Amino acid sequence: MTVKDENITVAIIGMNRIGKVHYQNLSSMPQITIKYICDIVADSSWNDEYSNVANIVTDYHEALADSEVQAVLICVPTNLHPQVIIDAAQAGKDIFCEKPVGFDYDEILKAYHAVQTAGVKFATGFNRRFDKNFRKIVERRINGDLGQEQILKITSRDPEPPSMDYVKHSGGIFMDMTIHDFDMARFITGQEVDSVYVAGGVMVDPKIGEAGDIDTALTTLVFKNGMLGSIDNSRKAVYGYDQRIELFGSQGMAHTDNVLETSTSYSGSKTIETDKPMFFFLQRYRDAYYSELESFFDAVRGKHDIECTFEDGIKAIRLAQAAKESATTGEAAKVKDI
Amino acid sequence: MTVKDENITVAIIGMNRIGKVHYQNLSSMPQITIKYICDIVADSSWNDEYSNVANIVTDYHEALADSEVQAVLICVPTNLHPQVIIDAAQAGKDIFCEKPVGFDYDEILKAYHAVQTAGVKFATGFNRRFDKNFRKIVERRINGDLGQEQILKITSRDPEPPSMDYVKHSGGIFMDMTIHDFDMARFITGQEVDSVYVAGGVMVDPKIGEAGDIDTALTTLVFKNGMLGSIDNSRKAVYGYDQRIELFGSQGMAHTDNVLETSTSYSGSKTIETDKPMFFFLQRYRDAYYSELESFFDAVRGKHDIECTFEDGIKAIRLAQAAKESATTGEAAKVKDI
Amino acid sequence: MTVKDENITVAIIGMNRIGKVHYQNLSSMPQITIKYICDIVADSSWNDEYSNVANIVTDYHEALADSEVQAVLICVPTNLHPQVIIDAAQAGKDIFCEKPVGFDYDEILKAYHAVQTAGVKFATGFNRRFDKNFRKIVERRINGDLGQEQILKITSRDPEPPSMDYVKHSGGIFMDMTIHDFDMARFITGQEVDSVYVAGGVMVDPKIGEAGDIDTALTTLVFKNGMLGSIDNSRKAVYGYDQRIELFGSQGMAHTDNVLETSTSYSGSKTIETDKPMFFFLQRYRDAYYSELESFFDAVRGKHDIECTFEDGIKAIRLAQAAKESATTGEAAKVKDI
Amino acid sequence: MTVKDENITVAIIGMNRIGKVHYQNLSSMPQITIKYICDIVADSSWNDEYSNVANIVTDYHEALADSEVQAVLICVPTNLHPQVIIDAAQAGKDIFCEKPVGFDYDEILKAYHAVQTAGVKFATGFNRRFDKNFRKIVERRINGDLGQEQILKITSRDPEPPSMDYVKHSGGIFMDMTIHDFDMARFITGQEVDSVYVAGGVMVDPKIGEAGDIDTALTTLVFKNGMLGSIDNSRKAVYGYDQRIELFGSQGMAHTDNVLETSTSYSGSKTIETDKPMFFFLQRYRDAYYSELESFFDAVRGKHDIECTFEDGIKAIRLAQAAKESATTGEAAKVKDI
Repeated sequence: MTVKDENITVAIIGMNRIGKVHYQNLSSMPQITIKYICDIVADSSWNDEYSNVANIVTDYHEALADSEVQAVLICVPTNLHPQVIIDAAQAGKDIFCEKPVGFDYDEILKAYHAVQTAGVKFATGFNRRFDKNFRKIVERRINGDLGQEQILKITSRDPEPPSMDYVKHSGGIFMDMTIHDFDMARFITGQEVDSVYVAGGVMVDPKIGEAGDIDTALTTLVFKNGMLGSIDNSRKAVYGYDQRIELFGSQGMAHTDNVLETSTSYSGSKTIETDKPMFFFLQRYRDAYYSELESFFDAVRGKHDIECTFEDGIKAIRLAQAAKESATTGEAAKVKDI
Repeated sequence: MTVKDENITVAIIGMNRIGKVHYQNLSSMPQITIKYICDIVADSSWNDEYSNVANIVTDYHEALADSEVQAVLICVPTNLHPQVIIDAAQAGKDIFCEKPVGFDYDEILKAYHAVQTAGVKFATGFNRRFDKNFRKIVERRINGDLGQEQILKITSRDPEPPSMDYVKHSGGIFMDMTIHDFDMARFITGQEVDSVYVAGGVMVDPKIGEAGDIDTALTTLVFKNGMLGSIDNSRKAVYGYDQRIELFGSQGMAHTDNVLETSTSYSGSKTIETDKPMFFFLQRYRDAYYSELESFFDAVRGKHDIECTFEDGIKAIRLAQAAKESATTGEAAKVKDI
Repeated sequence: MTVKDENITVAIIGMNRIGKVHYQNLSSMPQITIKYICDIVADSSWNDEYSNVANIVTDYHEALADSEVQAVLICVPTNLHPQVIIDAAQAGKDIFCEKPVGFDYDEILKAYHAVQTAGVKFATGFNRRFDKNFRKIVERRINGDLGQEQILKITSRDPEPPSMDYVKHSGGIFMDMTIHDFDMARFITGQEVDSVYVAGGVMVDPKIGEAGDIDTALTTLVFKNGMLGSIDNSRKAVYGYDQRIELFGSQGMAHTDNVLETSTSYSGSKTIETDKPMFFFLQRYRDAYYSELESFFDAVRGKHDIECTFEDGIKAIRLAQAAKESATTGEAAKVKDI
Repeated sequence: MTVKDENITVAIIGMNRIGKVHYQNLSSMPQITIKYICDIVADSSWNDEYSNVANIVTDYHEALADSEVQAVLICVPTNLHPQVIIDAAQAGKDIFCEKPVGFDYDEILKAYHAVQTAGVKFATGFNRRFDKNFRKIVERRINGDLGQEQILKITSRDPEPPSMDYVKHSGGIFMDMTIHDFDMARFITGQEVDSVYVAGGVMVDPKIGEAGDIDTALTTLVFKNGMLGSIDNSRKAVYGYDQRIELFGSQGMAHTDNVLETSTSYSGSKTIETDKPMFFFLQRYRDAYYSELESFFDAVRGKHDIECTFEDGIKAIRLAQAAKESATTGEAAKVKDI
């Protein structure tokens, strides 16, 4: 697809929570026209709510058939990702797809090949890669300030468990939650993981266990270059969304601490109190959600390569699969190639 | 002016740096229609740049004459504020006016009376009042956590001095820079200042002294309730925009520290390095600029009172006048009433 | 042994680095008389250096034979610990013994039974238990502020690897270095560990690998109550002695950060710099070394129970053994009982 | 007085709180013999308490008459300082004298001249100069990291007001409390103060006002080189001993924050809590009290010059006098030379 000018016409496919986040960002972005919102439950009342969008449709094929549409954002439920990817690729659209790229590995591979065949651009929506705080670690690494990498540590805890209904269709903690951390493990270190060992349990809510999932996990990563990594996850941290990463090397350590709600402290007669970490992921990663779209569109414009590729999306799934295996067998599991 | 529905039609008068900041925020704000941009140097090329604005005009009276325009944002140079305020008030428009409300005190009073006579709403643009970090201090105070207030401390240092051309027309450091801190002194404490004592000097750039101004100042405030305050200003801090406030009372202290560029640190063989404070005021107060407009429009909608009034704008000027007097005489100066 | 008054007469057995640390602390402690220093290489020149000590002897049996000596500090090389413990116990002396309590498990058990038979008091020298910062975590836990414990995280990195000569006789990283962290894992959580999984490598110095040891390790702990723990060790952190612990539970998290050399920061044109963590363990744990002796002597005086017992010393060894096993087999290893 | 060897024989004159602090430090210091403790209320029971001191006497002239005594520590009440200084100087003893060096300026001058005539060494006990945290600011300044000095800020607040009996004999807040900050203003900047302006009040306890003193003060310093300084004092901060200093210059800022009781934080469901600043000055400045004596004795040994001289003691008093004058007149007061 040749880029004629800077303006890009897009369609959003799927308008649940994350679709709305992207809609907000697209609306305030220069040089972007949202020509379609596609959602199977859309009705006429949506015309008021999204008055800057020309077409609100229930069938995304309408958007794909419009030659003016250059790029699509796929925000439908995960199990539908592969089919929409295939359709969009065959229609020649550049694709931004939410994570994870799918549940069923065979379907994912089909979608991957469809994208390769069509030669369209494809970005996976791992928003945390675009967080300025974490990027600073990568900067330090690339700059050589850390020397030889040795230990990666990721703390990733949600403020609250999702609804039980969500848990049941989430693909499990590794596919839904840790998958972000698996991607960050690769992004932060620039290295591939060789094997994974998981110790986990149900500590937050017994119902999660009854649904066949766990809610607390400590994952050990051994990278192909020999370095070590640790990810600790919990579905519930009462003090908020806990998102810290540390990369330790022979020449130094880079550490990203939580972003607090304010920079104001209170010194009283008993303790000094500061605000908690930002509670909600949309607040914590507000700028990152904006930046990942900016990056995608600049890649569409040909200014740089896609920063988070389809391969990145698949490799994170391979890691989640290995983690699930280790949690089941109690032994370290090899991470498979694509 | 009766509010029929939630949508508000506005005109921006003056389209320099701060006008553009407000334009950006207005553009992403729901229920706001920017019908006019007024600037004496506007030309046809602006139609492309501001494609979502129906009318780009050089004469703001056109916007005032349009009965659909409900509110105006006054972003013209300070010396022109009073005249535009008077015109807008007489046209029945609600007014958001940038700080300071004017230079000449008689003109300011005329504008003030015009607003009172017209009965329109008027907000002064002291953006820092809307910063969530500083608001937390006020929350603590109102909540009683600080007990009896005793000492206020404000550190306010710019990353770089403005251009000499700007300095010459700025009204001096107290009217241009410290005026923000004077407003914060009143906002944070909820108290009025009785007298002001200034020690100052030219330490950043001798040219500022040649222009009859100073660039470094230490201002002591004695409040009417007896409590004390200190403001330290510099036109240049190499490490960035330094914006800290501390309120100390009989039961505790609230302290707002600088907001850093990232939450990432680097531990090397010599020191631990963290990022500097955000360098640019538009970055540091990005959210505050948005919130002050939201607050203004909600006041226009009748949802709450104006948060930062014309009186607030005038009282800050009275403080700046007293500071200038003290810097000249070397003695403490009484702060005059409106 | 009956305590007549508050004064306690002690002998120090072994006068290498750690013996000297204890000597310094004993010298400034009220109600303590150091009657003997015993070291096989002691000579007459030591009388000047330790002028406040009546007897400098090469054979520790002299001190044990003196009925005035109530307590001994065992600071000889680890392989000699069991024999000296047995001799001291049979002489009826209360014993403070450096960690680890021994290398050979059978010898350790013999010493343990000798102590039980003699009925003397015995303290193991895990100094970190007496650090005020870490104690605060335990306070929070006991106070119920953390709720149900879920995840323990210990970061423990040395500023520099020991000499290769030391490495060869150290018993390996788990027996020499991680043993402190194993003890802290039990102390901080109040829980026993069920199994251990280790991923490790040689990243700091290939010579350590040639000596059959590793220098970097990531150890996963599964506690008997189901909670999880992670310890990461490195023999070399260029930024100093890295000693952090975090305990996460259903109601909150307690986190001990490093103690920095000073509380002074420097804001320059590029970054904000703070001082590094204290570099040397004797500096970092200066107060803890003092407090562990105070605690021991108060236990000798009958004021409270021994805080860190022989059993604590043995359990840490059991953990080190399991870690070594896991590092060898690549599988999780059960921790054996005493 | 010629130094024969490294050992120094000392007498402590005055054994109240600060005398006991020094006694503790001297006792654990190598190469120091405390031969005399002199106090008018000493009795035979003191022999037990200070068993390592040969002579406990009520008349300090006994110690001065002993030719073995090389140095004295003067810890009697402030009004008696000058006479003891004169006696000690005439006896040829090197002198460490607590702050302030006296109350009556004529008496101080007489003592100063007696010391000059005798040619003995004299150190003033401004302990804060020896705090490692504050020294780091001086290091940065001397190193050139701050560029041209511009603004000094000192926050100095006590955790609790002294007893009313103490207040009445303290010489007032400037002579008793701010005098430390005046000395630090000179030490940190390396500059002399030209004039002082004070705004103060009674906010902590009306009884302090009835005794003719104030308990809260904001002091502006103008230095001879034009730079500015601010000191804020309160007799009571509920959160503990608040001791912060900041030096701002053309190339950067150095800032010493409070030293907290522990480095442990607690993240709960409402806030993150850290420990308060160390509450008690003897705890906060424990190491500084030790270091100032070490420095004095090394000066006595001829290893370096006295670090905090008699002149330093007098200049701090000149600043306190100017502050008192300004607080009375409401105008800036010139600082007089010695």
